[in-house]
Amino acid sequence: MSDSFSTPQWVHDAVFYQIFPDRFAISPKLSKPDNLEAWDAAPTVHGYKGGDLLGVAEHMDYLHDLGIDAIYFTPVFQSASNHRYHTHDYYQIDPLLGGRPAFDAMLKEAHRRGIRVVLDGVFNHASRGFFQFNDILENEAASPYLNWFKIKGYPLNAYAGQPNYGCWVDLPALPEFNHANPQVQRFIFDVARYWIDQGIDGWRLDVPFCFGDDAFWQEFRRVVKSANPEAYITGEIPWDATRWLRGDQFDGVMNYLLSYACWGFFGNQKLDGYALGQWQDAGHGRDWIRPGAGDFARSVTNLLERYPRPAVLAQLNLLDSHDTARILTIFKGDRDAFRLAETFLFTYPGAPCIYYGNEIGLEGGQDPDSRRAFPWDESRWDADLRAYIQKLTAIRKSHPALRDGDFKILSANGDCVVYLRALGAERIVCAVNRGAGSVSLDLDLTAELEDTCTLRELLRGGETRLQNGRLAFNLPPKSAAVWENVLTGL
Amino acid sequence: MSDSFSTPQWVHDAVFYQIFPDRFAISPKLSKPDNLEAWDAAPTVHGYKGGDLLGVAEHMDYLHDLGIDAIYFTPVFQSASNHRYHTHDYYQIDPLLGGRPAFDAMLKEAHRRGIRVVLDGVFNHASRGFFQFNDILENEAASPYLNWFKIKGYPLNAYAGQPNYGCWVDLPALPEFNHANPQVQRFIFDVARYWIDQGIDGWRLDVPFCFGDDAFWQEFRRVVKSANPEAYITGEIPWDATRWLRGDQFDGVMNYLLSYACWGFFGNQKLDGYALGQWQDAGHGRDWIRPGAGDFARSVTNLLERYPRPAVLAQLNLLDSHDTARILTIFKGDRDAFRLAETFLFTYPGAPCIYYGNEIGLEGGQDPDSRRAFPWDESRWDADLRAYIQKLTAIRKSHPALRDGDFKILSANGDCVVYLRALGAERIVCAVNRGAGSVSLDLDLTAELEDTCTLRELLRGGETRLQNGRLAFNLPPKSAAVWENVLTGL
Repeated sequence: MSDSFSTPQWVHDAVFYQIFPDRFAISPKLSKPDNLEAWDAAPTVHGYKGGDLLGVAEHMDYLHDLGIDAIYFTPVFQSASNHRYHTHDYYQIDPLLGGRPAFDAMLKEAHRRGIRVVLDGVFNHASRGFFQFNDILENEAASPYLNWFKIKGYPLNAYAGQPNYGCWVDLPALPEFNHANPQVQRFIFDVARYWIDQGIDGWRLDVPFCFGDDAFWQEFRRVVKSANPEAYITGEIPWDATRWLRGDQFDGVMNYLLSYACWGFFGNQKLDGYALGQWQDAGHGRDWIRPGAGDFARSVTNLLERYPRPAVLAQLNLLDSHDTARILTIFKGDRDAFRLAETFLFTYPGAPCIYYGNEIGLEGGQDPDSRRAFPWDESRWDADLRAYIQKLTAIRKSHPALRDGDFKILSANGDCVVYLRALGAERIVCAVNRGAGSVSLDLDLTAELEDTCTLRELLRGGETRLQNGRLAFNLPPKSAAVWENVLTGL
Repeated sequence: MSDSFSTPQWVHDAVFYQIFPDRFAISPKLSKPDNLEAWDAAPTVHGYKGGDLLGVAEHMDYLHDLGIDAIYFTPVFQSASNHRYHTHDYYQIDPLLGGRPAFDAMLKEAHRRGIRVVLDGVFNHASRGFFQFNDILENEAASPYLNWFKIKGYPLNAYAGQPNYGCWVDLPALPEFNHANPQVQRFIFDVARYWIDQGIDGWRLDVPFCFGDDAFWQEFRRVVKSANPEAYITGEIPWDATRWLRGDQFDGVMNYLLSYACWGFFGNQKLDGYALGQWQDAGHGRDWIRPGAGDFARSVTNLLERYPRPAVLAQLNLLDSHDTARILTIFKGDRDAFRLAETFLFTYPGAPCIYYGNEIGLEGGQDPDSRRAFPWDESRWDADLRAYIQKLTAIRKSHPALRDGDFKILSANGDCVVYLRALGAERIVCAVNRGAGSVSLDLDLTAELEDTCTLRELLRGGETRLQNGRLAFNLPPKSAAVWENVLTGL
């Protein structure tokens, strides 16, 4: 670990919200092309619904009310795909998203509310329409940009036949950059710096495990941090991320290992295997999706010990994303399981990230179903769920121990896990019971708290007092409790 | 003709220089991709030489010394072709040209010297990499932009097979816009306005005869002129242009009809038919390429009567372009013929335009040979030719009658044509003799000049005095004379 490793405090403190821009909101002020899918229709692989960034700007109060501190946007750059991972131009905001004016309005409305904005950087591959690749398609061996990609023959089999150039998972639509070319490196670093200079607060990096040696990512960090030392760098790493989290590359990663552990414990053998798909396979979740409380306790403790502490506090902790089924669907619609899992995420080190719409009960299987449009008709919302998420954001915000405090498992048995968060004099005791029956626990907290300390429960309210340093309580079925120590004489 | 038709005075007064940006100059300050052709190698259809706009900026003094007032650039926008007629992005300056910073530097250096800049607007078609077309390629029927082009089926046969969409002269690389779509119209008008707002001085329009009804071009004019009333609008019309020159659409056109007439008369049956190619066919030059002096006189007079006077004074008068062979090659290397044709162009109403490199004796057959790189090694220049062009620009600049004056044929016989330009008290008598023998003429100018007026010859110097209103002179083989009346008692 680098001696000088530090990660942005705002990330430790943040609650993220992930937005898939085509599906969050449409501004009535923007004119759109003709051929859009109906907002409420089931998403398709290729169709666009026409969501835009002015729509996000117009709903910034909604996010602020929810308690959001940062938005992670899946790609917003000009791209000929509804998910925009096929970048056409890294310097342009997609016209269907409202272009640069809509982006600027969104950024302004976000920053005005103290909400930070992290963009998705897709630097492994571009698209067939990307200028330098398109030049090779048009001019073949005469293109000045041959060395930007991994060309193996002509004519390029870009739209028919087996692709004869390097491309991501053999998809001809996604030609891979030749990262060995210093001009390609310069191009990527320039893009990274440009958007930081334009005011974004960080980068989420797409498939960084596919490209870039240590020197590449070290330079990436240097470029980004020299533009803004407080910028956040997080990577999409769906497995162990040690290599990138030594202090010289990323601040954190999308903490999918934690997702797997949460799926396993809170899903409790009632997971939707079809919805999980390849995420339950070896290399992804197989060794981590475990129902046992002990396994869960070991996993979540391991994840805190596996990486340097600055990275741990800056992890992007998520239950799902645009790349998985939605958590409610993974949990076969079990809202209690979802609530408990979110409770854990909000009381665990690292920044919780809510996938847009989860808070109002949106469901969806794997891509493209997990990318449904946000229903703005409130009658279709699960208002209780949303109020619960609001409560979690409020609790996390008002308790530094939940963000920067130590974490310690107090008990992990059967359906129940109890853990402590501690920072300075602040102590938070959290307990989750995923089971169908209530659980009585009697915990010895003498090592953690004053013998007669009063604890205040934050989710439902109420106080209780330790008896000889012991906390005895009954946890109803499928419920959680979050106690804070009531400090006196301050 | 519109009552309010006026054309920019600066165009009447201007000498244009046409630059093909990949071939004019390379700045040593810009880094370039690896795979460029050698500057001095013969041009190929697909290869790039890497010329850039910073190179143009660095050679602005060269143009200023030549007497240039305006540059017409073939396209400079991001494009996957060396000629850049396959537009990839209308809002970006091509990165190989140095991008926006090089463009801004060029514009600044030009304007600092009073040199105006006209860009090439290619609005009939885009390219296969153009974002909205690329979106259709990627998403087919699900693309929001279906209505931007003329799609007839899927999958698109863009890179193989017969194109199943509207494209220019059946070239799949050049998908034609659907100009009936108001969003396409808006897009084009926005581009047109944007670059005027960025400081360019006008648009040369590519193949405007292929698209756009009267209402379209009227709106185009309104948009451009409302952004800058002094902006120049000229169109590529290689035949009669009456429709566009009534005052409501263009200011002028590329005056190819005049080119044909000049080829015919000055080439004098010694034209290179292979170099002329399709330009000598029906619909283009066939009815205009005539060797006779009488035919020539009638043609050049006709072209002044055919269009409203404001358009006549704002025509872009050229002998060749990137679309033809170079004039020296058309004339089979006859530099005298070239000199005489230029002399005519510089003493005729409308703005003369020099195709880059002609002034130092560059030759070249049809595309791609006419697009050779400018040789900056002065030992390869025809210095006399350049000095002659400098003299012509100086003469035109110092004589308003050559720009805004009336034109009248005085004599047209055999190898010789004599004509008068007149504005206010200024009279210019021009004579060209294309023949191998000297010609003696004795002209009655009593209707035009004082009986004993003194005339000063501007090309070689010397004075002569009318005798009883008659000018008697001997014109050497393949030479021209330009007399101005010496005004006394002012």
